[in-house]
Amino acid sequence: MTEDMTRREFAGGTMTAGLMLGLNGALQPETGNRAPVRVGFIGIGGRGTALLKTILELDGVRIPALCDVLEPNLAQAQDVVEQAGQDRPAGYAKGPHDFERMLERDDLDAVVIATPWRWHVPMAIAAMQAGIYVGSEVGPASSVKECWDLVETHESTGIPCMFLENSCYRRNMMAVLHMCRLGLLGELVHCQGGYLHDLRGRIVQGKGTGVQLPEGGDYRTRQNRTRNADIYPTHGLGPMAKCLNVNQGNRFVSIASFATKSRGLRAWAVDNLGVDDAHAQIDWAMGDVITSVIQCQNGETIVLKHDCALPRPKTFMWLVQGTKGLYSEEADGIYIDGRSPAHAWEPFDRYQEEYEHPVWREYLKTGIKGGHDGSDFLELTAFVDSVRHRRPAPVDVYDMAAWMAVAPLSEQSIALGGKPVPYPDFTGGKWMSVQES
Amino acid sequence: MTEDMTRREFAGGTMTAGLMLGLNGALQPETGNRAPVRVGFIGIGGRGTALLKTILELDGVRIPALCDVLEPNLAQAQDVVEQAGQDRPAGYAKGPHDFERMLERDDLDAVVIATPWRWHVPMAIAAMQAGIYVGSEVGPASSVKECWDLVETHESTGIPCMFLENSCYRRNMMAVLHMCRLGLLGELVHCQGGYLHDLRGRIVQGKGTGVQLPEGGDYRTRQNRTRNADIYPTHGLGPMAKCLNVNQGNRFVSIASFATKSRGLRAWAVDNLGVDDAHAQIDWAMGDVITSVIQCQNGETIVLKHDCALPRPKTFMWLVQGTKGLYSEEADGIYIDGRSPAHAWEPFDRYQEEYEHPVWREYLKTGIKGGHDGSDFLELTAFVDSVRHRRPAPVDVYDMAAWMAVAPLSEQSIALGGKPVPYPDFTGGKWMSVQES
Repeated sequence: MTEDMTRREFAGGTMTAGLMLGLNGALQPETGNRAPVRVGFIGIGGRGTALLKTILELDGVRIPALCDVLEPNLAQAQDVVEQAGQDRPAGYAKGPHDFERMLERDDLDAVVIATPWRWHVPMAIAAMQAGIYVGSEVGPASSVKECWDLVETHESTGIPCMFLENSCYRRNMMAVLHMCRLGLLGELVHCQGGYLHDLRGRIVQGKGTGVQLPEGGDYRTRQNRTRNADIYPTHGLGPMAKCLNVNQGNRFVSIASFATKSRGLRAWAVDNLGVDDAHAQIDWAMGDVITSVIQCQNGETIVLKHDCALPRPKTFMWLVQGTKGLYSEEADGIYIDGRSPAHAWEPFDRYQEEYEHPVWREYLKTGIKGGHDGSDFLELTAFVDSVRHRRPAPVDVYDMAAWMAVAPLSEQSIALGGKPVPYPDFTGGKWMSVQES
Repeated sequence: MTEDMTRREFAGGTMTAGLMLGLNGALQPETGNRAPVRVGFIGIGGRGTALLKTILELDGVRIPALCDVLEPNLAQAQDVVEQAGQDRPAGYAKGPHDFERMLERDDLDAVVIATPWRWHVPMAIAAMQAGIYVGSEVGPASSVKECWDLVETHESTGIPCMFLENSCYRRNMMAVLHMCRLGLLGELVHCQGGYLHDLRGRIVQGKGTGVQLPEGGDYRTRQNRTRNADIYPTHGLGPMAKCLNVNQGNRFVSIASFATKSRGLRAWAVDNLGVDDAHAQIDWAMGDVITSVIQCQNGETIVLKHDCALPRPKTFMWLVQGTKGLYSEEADGIYIDGRSPAHAWEPFDRYQEEYEHPVWREYLKTGIKGGHDGSDFLELTAFVDSVRHRRPAPVDVYDMAAWMAVAPLSEQSIALGGKPVPYPDFTGGKWMSVQES
């Protein structure tokens, strides 16, 4: 099976047969390979531990080694593995570069990376260089160059790197993807997505995360203090990119970004900690609402928002719009020309059932597991399946580079007053020959 | 009363006392002027006739003259005035420039302009030059120059021109404006608005409007064939501009616009008229979805959409967001920090009652009249009241210029691939000295 074919299958609505198999133990894997997949973890704080617990629910996964800069995190995660009936994994906690020692092991098929954002790419690169299949948590790129390094390492080593963007595996977005493939929305024209989530307390104080910066706060705090950019673009963008066949017959051509003034974090600190508290003196770099518009090769636009510093209900703001209808997450509704009552949203739930993605249809039979409404379990199923069969990643290094690059590219555009900046083609032209099914 | 003071009152949440008086016959107008206001109409097709019927419900309005290029429109409107108990108005229907003859009359205090879009500005200019107070229907500017001409005519003649943007008078948006003035949403940071309305059949065939173009269709058809721009920005933008004090301590600084491919109108024609129909061969200039981002002097951004060529439920997409909460028309909800349940929308209706704009509170006592959920009646009340007392317009020529200019400015930005273009300051710096209350 060629890389192109596999990637097309994912995008084509049937996803990988392997993922299906992971959901149904009665079926035999096509290659017959049932050797355990040996997965190490780099970063086992809150997020890493959640992923660890979820991956342990899969058949045929062994955890030989774990790495974290914090000993208590490490010990707790070792306990988790033992409690799941496996040998206590080796531990690596000798400073921030101890992961490099872990990657020297010869018993790792794959690693999951769930560290603070700026470590994702260097760790992914080191793992690929060590010949180890990567599953990387999401976050922003630090630079465009970093995205290129990621892609080039993949191409020079031949080792896959999967971007663990769980939003692609959410039930609603997989049904919408399925509908798009079936043509229900017609030719796609416009999409929306974003990360609109009130994280003020967490950003200001950095509570709830393991690694505290010397100046207080965590990696999210640091990014808010230093960057004016969409620093968390991939939940909003990932499912839209899949619907639009980005990197598979389509590509991002340009991005223009616009930041509001920064008011929300200081207002929160004043109201909650007092005007004399040190947190109320911080000069935040990031605008409260970042709006980006991505123009695509095939003539579509995507509106993307980042909005984490103001009080508001959470939403991903997903909207997928075509010549025959549209889906809106915020409306929790769908409108199909000639089928829906004129000018009125239909509740999405009926369509969810009718157009359930085949993977989710199987999944629901066995029961939803793990975090983020079950999407973590599905993404890890796909990850382990890809590793087992040495298949390319269903959300691959080109997706990872393109989606993460929103951060530095939006930063550039904002610095230029909203001027569109060109989007690098990380596929090096391969998007032209990888057509949607 | 200075112009500044009156404009501030409108924006300040109490609107004009005059508007209040128009809603309550028991109060005496402050100037004691109860002479009838004599209003001519230019354009009495569907929209003009609706406005005519509504204005006839106001006390103290006389209609001495009417103008339309179509004799049947004219006769029907003359009947309407007679049926309201007034003398049959003089009629002007001798071609597209007969309005100039009407403007020579000495018995007109004001004119309402409700013609095809491209006539609004030249007619408004002609009326101001004739010393007649203007109420102009909404639409796009043909050029930025035209907006300057409008402003310069106002400044050289001293005659007011009110922009009849009824969305500013909608019940929900006046309550939101009132909340903003009361500080309920904190410091405003971000807004959204738009005109998202499936008009495919009307755009393709131009049905339902009086004036047909020789090549078929009407003015909306023509704009869609020739321009790639947000050609109907003011419903979405007007209420946002009022909330943000644009032209009164704030201003639009730049606009960047992005167009999708054009697919919806052709697809509609093929599906509804057949692939061989002439309408299916039209090469539409306008992208199906136009997204603009306006950056404001005080650090806010406004996202604006135009989306009339795809199937979808109608929305204005209004969203007003500040440091303490936000209103969303699409959610029909509001979220106030510390008051709303965490991370959940509250239904807007309770807030609507609690924060009803004083004008609407009075209005509801007398009963809602006229079109567009009663907003037409309110805007005409404000218009007639301003004319009666020779007051500046509550939605004035600077608002009109700035809001209509979205059309040519978005056109420029789209032509430049989404590059932000500078926003003219039509107030000539006066925005700096006109502060919000």
